[in-house]
Amino acid sequence: MPNPKSKIQNPKSNARFLRACCGEPVDRTPVWLMRQAGRFLPEYRALREKYSMMEMLHAPELAVEATLQPVRRFEIDAAIIFADILPILTGMGLELNFVKGAGPVLANPIRRAADVTALRLVPPDESLPFVLEAIRLARRELEGKVPLIGFSGAPFTLASYAIEGGGSKNYTRVKALMYGEPDTWHLLMEKLTTAVGDYLAAQVEAGAQTLQLFDSWAGALSPSDYARFVLPYNRRVTERVRSTGVPFIYFSTGTSAMLPLTAQVGSDVVGVDWRIPLDEAWDAIGTDRGIQGNLDPALLATAPPSVVVAEARRILREAGGRPGHIFNLGHGVLPQTPLENVQALVEAMDLDC
Amino acid sequence: MPNPKSKIQNPKSNARFLRACCGEPVDRTPVWLMRQAGRFLPEYRALREKYSMMEMLHAPELAVEATLQPVRRFEIDAAIIFADILPILTGMGLELNFVKGAGPVLANPIRRAADVTALRLVPPDESLPFVLEAIRLARRELEGKVPLIGFSGAPFTLASYAIEGGGSKNYTRVKALMYGEPDTWHLLMEKLTTAVGDYLAAQVEAGAQTLQLFDSWAGALSPSDYARFVLPYNRRVTERVRSTGVPFIYFSTGTSAMLPLTAQVGSDVVGVDWRIPLDEAWDAIGTDRGIQGNLDPALLATAPPSVVVAEARRILREAGGRPGHIFNLGHGVLPQTPLENVQALVEAMDLDC
Repeated sequence: MPNPKSKIQNPKSNARFLRACCGEPVDRTPVWLMRQAGRFLPEYRALREKYSMMEMLHAPELAVEATLQPVRRFEIDAAIIFADILPILTGMGLELNFVKGAGPVLANPIRRAADVTALRLVPPDESLPFVLEAIRLARRELEGKVPLIGFSGAPFTLASYAIEGGGSKNYTRVKALMYGEPDTWHLLMEKLTTAVGDYLAAQVEAGAQTLQLFDSWAGALSPSDYARFVLPYNRRVTERVRSTGVPFIYFSTGTSAMLPLTAQVGSDVVGVDWRIPLDEAWDAIGTDRGIQGNLDPALLATAPPSVVVAEARRILREAGGRPGHIFNLGHGVLPQTPLENVQALVEAMDLDC
Repeated sequence: MPNPKSKIQNPKSNARFLRACCGEPVDRTPVWLMRQAGRFLPEYRALREKYSMMEMLHAPELAVEATLQPVRRFEIDAAIIFADILPILTGMGLELNFVKGAGPVLANPIRRAADVTALRLVPPDESLPFVLEAIRLARRELEGKVPLIGFSGAPFTLASYAIEGGGSKNYTRVKALMYGEPDTWHLLMEKLTTAVGDYLAAQVEAGAQTLQLFDSWAGALSPSDYARFVLPYNRRVTERVRSTGVPFIYFSTGTSAMLPLTAQVGSDVVGVDWRIPLDEAWDAIGTDRGIQGNLDPALLATAPPSVVVAEARRILREAGGRPGHIFNLGHGVLPQTPLENVQALVEAMDLDC
């Protein structure tokens, strides 16, 4: 029975996003926004006035509500499950708190080999059942109108949070472990790779139709360190995802000069930020692969709608209508982003460039 | 009369750095570190226990002492005047404070066209006489043993500080002005370009033998925005510096995928961070130009000395002995960097790769 609450804007776009992920031709470029289930929406802010981040994450019906909000408001081509990259670390034994103003903080970060040895590997249906339940519910509510993306933090980005204990400017604790205790580093990455793989596979089983791996902090690394300390683990995640059969997107930022390396992760679609023209990025990745990006989120947050449209058209022109482009920002949508700018962006996908 | 206090480690290296800036062959790759006159040195921290940042900046004899400290301790090939990129904004009418823990803060940031109109252009010998005097004194104390670098913030990076009022994560105020009020933006950049040009020319008159333009925040921009809103002003600074006859280094970070654009600034030497292999970077810049970089400062701060040496050798190998490479970090040396790592790095320059 159709759900009268759903009011999803874009009932015919189900195939569009999935086809683009696989490099197949589409009627227009699909678009969604990282962090679209988030603070730029007044209806999300209203939810967050009533519920803390932790409450939202642990209550599947609240997570589903946040997941559906952007899909109700805008004609976007995919939903992404409302979740966070860090609760997987809680399952492994780290204590996570969301501190108002300061963001996520881990009370017992990893500082020595014994901390890594102590990390547990628990099946996702025991450690993260609320995410899997939210995915099941969201699929039902979406009624096949747009596909649902599941996701996880990538091993390096999770390791960085686990070691630094929160955000970081220079990643000096991460790098101290990487260079100073490479065996400990590799053991940590082994464990995280297994946990991430299990989690992503469980999301597909629960109903996720595409998976995205967020390696938001990979841009802290030199190409040689990325190749040595990070890439092999991302490749193993890809192998694991391959076996699930759903399309796979690898996302990172600050990596514009090492896209040939991020392409070696082997995902179907490679994310790029705004620090490189889309056509150059696509050439670096290889045009047999999909590409996701690459609008500057600060432009979407601050520019007049006419500038947003002009910039979207520039990116679409650079993509040149080649199959395999998924329009997105180069990073998450900023909380202050005006709704009318998002509307203008989504409408710009229909323009004939 | 020689100054017994000076004890400069590297009396024969004067020509090495300057020759490399001009792409001429050298006996070994010259090396210096951004922020070498800074907190990683115990003798600098001792100074800062007695004097505030403002006192250090305004007293030429203290600035000279900080300038000489790294040159006394390490066999590096250049001194850089101890100064800061922000006091130029004070001269223009903005009120600058260094807030312990929070870094520099501008009390009256630029928020509207009238703020830009109100900015004053004062000759540097009136607004920044203490820097020029420090340069004169430092040249005397250095006795020609290593060359002295003068510097300024680049117009974009100064504009960003002036608008944001301090550090920024997403540069949304800067971009709001750039996209929303382009005329105001261009007027601000015009004024800053004139102020920067005057300041750099005055530094050469006072004795600076090389100039570096710090565009540390250029990596916040997409290539198209850099080309449109920033590059033309940097090119005008280059033209102005050309007329002084000293070598010119343009430095930025997070710009690895747009080096062909930063090369268009037209400097003799182009700085690169650690997010791209040096050989690829040099190819992108053009091998007729010099290159400065590209060791990760977090590696220098955290790795064992053996790893520092291995990484330095990798970079030297990538440079391939071509004239025009100046070894440096990809950004400033971090305060926690061990002295022995810097010593190992400097000694690595003598290794036969």
